[in-house]
Amino acid sequence: MKNQTTQFPKVIIIGGGFGGIQIAKKMNKKEVDLLMLDRHNYHTFQPLLYQVATGGLEPDSIAFPLRKVFQDQKNFNFRVADVKHINPENKSVTTDIGDFDYDYLVIATGSETNFFGQKEIEHFSMPMKTVPEALNLRSLILQNFEEALVEKDLERKQALMTFVVVGGGPTGVETAGALAELKNHVLVHDYPELDIHNMKIYLFEGSERILEPFSLQASKKAKEFLQNMGVIVMEKTRVNHYDGDKVTYNTTETIFTKGVVWSAGVKGAIIPGLEKAEIVRGGRIKTTNFNLVEGYENIFAIGDLAYMETPEWPHGHPGVAQTAIQQGQQLADNLIRIINNEKPHPFNYFDKGSMATVGRNKAVVDLKYWKFQGFFAWLTWMFIHLLFLVGFRNKAVTLINWIVNYFSYDRGSRVIIRKFNRESMMEEGKAV
Amino acid sequence: MKNQTTQFPKVIIIGGGFGGIQIAKKMNKKEVDLLMLDRHNYHTFQPLLYQVATGGLEPDSIAFPLRKVFQDQKNFNFRVADVKHINPENKSVTTDIGDFDYDYLVIATGSETNFFGQKEIEHFSMPMKTVPEALNLRSLILQNFEEALVEKDLERKQALMTFVVVGGGPTGVETAGALAELKNHVLVHDYPELDIHNMKIYLFEGSERILEPFSLQASKKAKEFLQNMGVIVMEKTRVNHYDGDKVTYNTTETIFTKGVVWSAGVKGAIIPGLEKAEIVRGGRIKTTNFNLVEGYENIFAIGDLAYMETPEWPHGHPGVAQTAIQQGQQLADNLIRIINNEKPHPFNYFDKGSMATVGRNKAVVDLKYWKFQGFFAWLTWMFIHLLFLVGFRNKAVTLINWIVNYFSYDRGSRVIIRKFNRESMMEEGKAV
Repeated sequence: MKNQTTQFPKVIIIGGGFGGIQIAKKMNKKEVDLLMLDRHNYHTFQPLLYQVATGGLEPDSIAFPLRKVFQDQKNFNFRVADVKHINPENKSVTTDIGDFDYDYLVIATGSETNFFGQKEIEHFSMPMKTVPEALNLRSLILQNFEEALVEKDLERKQALMTFVVVGGGPTGVETAGALAELKNHVLVHDYPELDIHNMKIYLFEGSERILEPFSLQASKKAKEFLQNMGVIVMEKTRVNHYDGDKVTYNTTETIFTKGVVWSAGVKGAIIPGLEKAEIVRGGRIKTTNFNLVEGYENIFAIGDLAYMETPEWPHGHPGVAQTAIQQGQQLADNLIRIINNEKPHPFNYFDKGSMATVGRNKAVVDLKYWKFQGFFAWLTWMFIHLLFLVGFRNKAVTLINWIVNYFSYDRGSRVIIRKFNRESMMEEGKAV
Repeated sequence: MKNQTTQFPKVIIIGGGFGGIQIAKKMNKKEVDLLMLDRHNYHTFQPLLYQVATGGLEPDSIAFPLRKVFQDQKNFNFRVADVKHINPENKSVTTDIGDFDYDYLVIATGSETNFFGQKEIEHFSMPMKTVPEALNLRSLILQNFEEALVEKDLERKQALMTFVVVGGGPTGVETAGALAELKNHVLVHDYPELDIHNMKIYLFEGSERILEPFSLQASKKAKEFLQNMGVIVMEKTRVNHYDGDKVTYNTTETIFTKGVVWSAGVKGAIIPGLEKAEIVRGGRIKTTNFNLVEGYENIFAIGDLAYMETPEWPHGHPGVAQTAIQQGQQLADNLIRIINNEKPHPFNYFDKGSMATVGRNKAVVDLKYWKFQGFFAWLTWMFIHLLFLVGFRNKAVTLINWIVNYFSYDRGSRVIIRKFNRESMMEEGKAV
């Protein structure tokens, strides 16, 4: 399929995440023919998925139409396409809507949920990497409460009101905190017939401490915040098994629960076809210091998917938006250099720090020379997230929601638009 | 299943629409035990569904959590339940979560799409009575354009860009208008590779004129508005058939289209079990002048579902929100009277007029003594709709969206959150 119209080099970008958007934007007005392919017609602002899942935000607020991002960019084309295979031998990609040729290929597919090969957990637990997944989780939480209301079996009733968040990274911490706020401010009023004290929220973390890559101070404070909100934080706790009814952890311990949120890990979203590439731990693709996939001359990987060893980051860069954004920007420059037969510049990561929010007035921020927690950290967190959220409408609607949520202690989007079908999940699960 | 806890009369309300909400609210602090049952955990603001379908609003903006509406009402309970059968002989209803007993039953289930028994049309066309249906339509419209981009067969490409809205009532008029705005302001920029002039929007109306229950003046003006926006308005046009590819109308004429919106009629959402009730034209239940279902002593029907003949309205009241709201309020009073062995008062409809919007600055308003169209009508329409939209957050978010849409000529929610699966629809259709 001929996808471009000029004689300029054809650059295909797979993925419209933070990295993909940056590289395409940065190549505006350059003499290239850009084609972006994404499974969705929108960019997902992943850091706020947990707020969609817990009824604080509307899905469309964190989804931004990709065509709109590039509406005025003449060298840009877009296709909703699922890329099935990369064919380096004839410089093309195979998708569900046909093949596309490239001169340069940028893989910016990011990461996907890592269940570490545990099929049963994959079947029964709720991941949260896409908008539909966040909406499924929202439905599940609310459906569990509706079911608990009419459930007579006390053990099952308790299981419906028990939520286990697996993985104490920022997503897990934020989800557990949001669940606690939902419990304390919303569900307590929505379900006066239920004893809300029976709602249990566990946060499991396999390592020594939650928010492990953060400072010790941030970890401690986040744990304190969570515990004050009623979350049961369990560190050095590893899940072995979940069968849809019962979580087994640390080999012998069990909890009955009908709601397991899986945020324990991610892996690179690999597309088959790169035989020569080296896939390292976490399913990331090894690249040179200018994001070239080792073994190829015209295939690049950026963001969560890319594994680049540098003296400063000997085990690769953190899997966060900033890495994707900075690598996207740098690679845009480098691609132009490469096209002009100039030498590409090595990537240099500027660490802007990390942050996570636990709840109202509660967040932790780690900057290089300054670590702070609490109200000011929470304001910083909100400001930064609004800043990076794409589009004025999305910023405005999100801000309105946050203001209303803050002053009313409410979560207005606690609506089950599409029911999550537990039965069909169960059947699929049993079929494994 | 015992559903209530006091000795007060048990009132079950089926449906959390305009009517159901009103009657329950009006009975706050009265000595009754209220139980509302609804399939969804939210109230749907149906008049704005077409804006969700055309990317102008987020789904959660027109859905309001029913539990929140009644959070402080002590005599109120709510269950997400699908009522399968009414059992007047033992004063109970059967639902998917068990049986519930009542002393008084209020059926406020509203109306559902009427395909007039045409199974094939039901399979292949898009109704728009619920939020998920509106989201399906949104996905279909956008998917059609994505498909048209890569379609080589010119006839199919044209069919993907052709939309037929069947039914020239307010919903049909508003949908056709919104599609025209999507075409003229959004899709033209999003799909520069397509010739947007090939996008055709038809509005079919079976009767003499669109907006038939409105004044002649309103009908004419709405038609003029639509035609100026590029909609092909076809009156006295009846659809005979739609097979997923081709609409047949007026017996012999055909149009190839992959997008048929069905807004040609509604019928009462009847629940089985009322053997003695008289079901009249449009699947409505005949009631006395105080909404009692004829043949029963303790079963009432209000809103779209109720058919009540009065001297002023010999063929029943209009199927609009105002009828449901007013009947709900009146029946609340009457139920208390009936419980106190007083005589109920007959219902008296106060006609507040009707309105429909066609597009920016374009609407028609029919009041009893004043009919006007254009910019002021459009402002009136917006004001009234914001007023009746439930909840501050929803009002604020909707207003923000309208302001942004107005000044940017944009529709920011043009995101395909969940793909509409045409194939599985087709297969189901073929199986008929």
